[in-house]
Amino acid sequence: MNNGSSVAELAETLRLQWDRYPSGEKLPSSRLLMEQHRVSPVTVSRAIALLAAEGLVIARPGAGVFRAERPRTRAAAGDVSWQEVTLSAHGASGAPLAEATGVLATLTVPPVDVIDLNSGYPHASLLPERGLADALARAGRRPGAWSRPPVEGLAELRAWFAREIGGPEGGLAASDVLIAAGGQSALTVALRSLAPPGAPVLVESPTYPGILAVARAAGLRPVPVPVDGEGLRTDLLAHAFTTTGARLLVCQPLFQNPTGVTLSDRRRAEVLELARAAGAFVVEDDYARLLAHADAPALPRPLAADDPDGVVVHVRSLTKAASPSLRIAAVIARGPAYERLRATQAVDSFFVSRPLQEATLELVSSPAWSRHLRTLGVGLRDRRQTLATALAQHLPALPPAPLAAGGYLAWLRLPHGSDESALVSAALRAGVGVTPGAPYFAAEPPEPHLRLSHVAAVSSSQLAEGVARLAAAWAATSAL
Amino acid sequence: MNNGSSVAELAETLRLQWDRYPSGEKLPSSRLLMEQHRVSPVTVSRAIALLAAEGLVIARPGAGVFRAERPRTRAAAGDVSWQEVTLSAHGASGAPLAEATGVLATLTVPPVDVIDLNSGYPHASLLPERGLADALARAGRRPGAWSRPPVEGLAELRAWFAREIGGPEGGLAASDVLIAAGGQSALTVALRSLAPPGAPVLVESPTYPGILAVARAAGLRPVPVPVDGEGLRTDLLAHAFTTTGARLLVCQPLFQNPTGVTLSDRRRAEVLELARAAGAFVVEDDYARLLAHADAPALPRPLAADDPDGVVVHVRSLTKAASPSLRIAAVIARGPAYERLRATQAVDSFFVSRPLQEATLELVSSPAWSRHLRTLGVGLRDRRQTLATALAQHLPALPPAPLAAGGYLAWLRLPHGSDESALVSAALRAGVGVTPGAPYFAAEPPEPHLRLSHVAAVSSSQLAEGVARLAAAWAATSAL
Repeated sequence: MNNGSSVAELAETLRLQWDRYPSGEKLPSSRLLMEQHRVSPVTVSRAIALLAAEGLVIARPGAGVFRAERPRTRAAAGDVSWQEVTLSAHGASGAPLAEATGVLATLTVPPVDVIDLNSGYPHASLLPERGLADALARAGRRPGAWSRPPVEGLAELRAWFAREIGGPEGGLAASDVLIAAGGQSALTVALRSLAPPGAPVLVESPTYPGILAVARAAGLRPVPVPVDGEGLRTDLLAHAFTTTGARLLVCQPLFQNPTGVTLSDRRRAEVLELARAAGAFVVEDDYARLLAHADAPALPRPLAADDPDGVVVHVRSLTKAASPSLRIAAVIARGPAYERLRATQAVDSFFVSRPLQEATLELVSSPAWSRHLRTLGVGLRDRRQTLATALAQHLPALPPAPLAAGGYLAWLRLPHGSDESALVSAALRAGVGVTPGAPYFAAEPPEPHLRLSHVAAVSSSQLAEGVARLAAAWAATSAL
Repeated sequence: MNNGSSVAELAETLRLQWDRYPSGEKLPSSRLLMEQHRVSPVTVSRAIALLAAEGLVIARPGAGVFRAERPRTRAAAGDVSWQEVTLSAHGASGAPLAEATGVLATLTVPPVDVIDLNSGYPHASLLPERGLADALARAGRRPGAWSRPPVEGLAELRAWFAREIGGPEGGLAASDVLIAAGGQSALTVALRSLAPPGAPVLVESPTYPGILAVARAAGLRPVPVPVDGEGLRTDLLAHAFTTTGARLLVCQPLFQNPTGVTLSDRRRAEVLELARAAGAFVVEDDYARLLAHADAPALPRPLAADDPDGVVVHVRSLTKAASPSLRIAAVIARGPAYERLRATQAVDSFFVSRPLQEATLELVSSPAWSRHLRTLGVGLRDRRQTLATALAQHLPALPPAPLAAGGYLAWLRLPHGSDESALVSAALRAGVGVTPGAPYFAAEPPEPHLRLSHVAAVSSSQLAEGVARLAAAWAATSAL
């Protein structure tokens, strides 16, 4: 182990001698250095490598070692410009692995005087903040609350999710459930586990930009499959499976983001059948299950409840209905896929904070939870009705698709040739934040769109005022 | 949008007719189907694609469409065996992306009658559980505690980490800090951001298996650089930068896991100089900074405190000193690298739970925190001394490297030719969990080793008993 210091000593000696050589001159041979300094050939070659790495010398194999033109100068204090070169190694285009523009746009908090029709997180007045605070306080005092939880999550919480998702006869077991740190982490774990980098992944078109971003960060190629009024177009899905060889589909069968569409019963059976035939996984992002409005008809079961063969990997998050900061979600998977997901999560992040899992259990086990969901359903229905009325009143030129009785979205198709970016900018100047349609398409958008969320505004009256401001911006830009 | 249903109708008609054709027989031409069913060529080709995906027909371009030998049968209820085929697409070897064996081994909770000399998480008696519970309860009631935090983390917590890591004159700003969900997540975000899949990453040898697992899950190729009594061998590091072209090094300069070694002052300057010359990032995993023993000499500054140019990406976690379930860490980065890390984290997981960040602030801002760290330092010193005494008494044949006055590890080199797996198994039968050395090497281990942790056992006396049990296992296996 003494070899290290002899290398360092020789390198230091050579550094001191370095000034004696004119630029470009050949240094003494390795053999000569070995004899002069009584060191091994390994020591000489490592000392030379050290100097080469420092930019003092250039080793030309077969020809010898030469004094470098001038040493690479150390960057001036606080100069990070070298990073641009190093980071450009990411992909041929130098593009970063994670394209976060779409995600960061939806996570940005708007200025206080701007009405938020952009964020998908419900306003605090819709959330059970008191119940959350109480649950968290109790959770932190439970025996063992601060110890290491199992990698898969707390057994009781897994059992609760299995009942919640599968229903009393859904055939889901606690052992099918993996607890993840929120819906986005769950999607990341699923997509990174189920397909190798470079593989195609079928996605709905339009779809939630967070899905596209996760797919791209996992090195996958999103292939868009259009959605119509019945949900995913299964004729095109069949075609897409055949032509791309994809083994993975990501979809939101219930109150799809951004269209609000729910997959029809017929299409639902076809999606499962096509995926089975293709040997493909279906990641079911059931993000809006707890956001059904008070006047919604009975919801279809999750795909995962009709899937004995482990085709469906189901993602269920509590953040939308509870709090953006209750970062708890469940992933349902069966068979080797479950093991794959568990391994990915263990390597990426070990496990999910135990007190947050305990707090979730406290929250959902209390009678206040179902009361909260009923109240939330009433609030969401009222906001939907307010939004529909305001759109009809202020923006009759832009009829939205029928507003769904679940979730929180309106997806407005703009007239052909409209400039959605200009409209979004004008709306922001007019004091309302809305979402452009382009990031919701994996490829070129077929038409310009606008997405409105009715859940983040302070109140229904602010929501209506937001639509009025949008209408003013629309009048200004469409008059141009 | 009506096209979808005509495709489905045609497909259903063809399905019903399918039985009429003998296996292998050619179906009517597309032209004939178009005329018979009064549909477009697109509808015909999509309906055929649907049947092909279902395995009913085979399309042979140029020849026509034929009835398949037999349809692919739908898997019997509950049959997940198809997943093996689909998942084998991961890599030429069919190996999963995330190799979690090493990580899962260290995260497994041993049976109650087994003394734990394996886990790196301190026993509950060493942790501030009361303070954590109080901090969490207060955090959940802070105004806005349940709202969305900024993607980068709470400004106050970022400022605290900047002072904590950079010191009063360290030149770190809150804007250099990204809050992550624990040390493992921080390493994942850093390694996924700083080098593209397929790139080499230099790692210490031996090193923490969690680093190897994260590197491999990011698609990187770990290249081992040996560690000696002064830390990373800079002569070999220079060689490794030159020969591999690596632009990324991951290291633990303080109380390295598993050797306990601290990088010497001379080597420390060389590591930074070599990385600068190579245009490489240095990920500094400062996992044991808060685990200095009561009798430790003054600690060297973090590499990040001597790095104006954004070469060092520093990872600091609170989990070891506070609780495995306080999943909060900070990453320090400057320049474009910071933006890259922030984007990766936003896409992977959005942000870190705000109440956990608030609780961390409550905890570290209280006077009890520095008292806790002093108590922890005394407890760790006592355990180290107990372990050293027990090893000298019971296992004089296996002199460990000198036990470091920080961290919690002993790294024992076993005699050449020893079977470390057999010893680990025998130890488990004798009632003590210890860690084999092999997973700590990126390539073939040069010699067998054993790693002991003195931090997870219930008490010092149990720690000594664990070593006695290990000695019995050693006597039994080495006598074979």
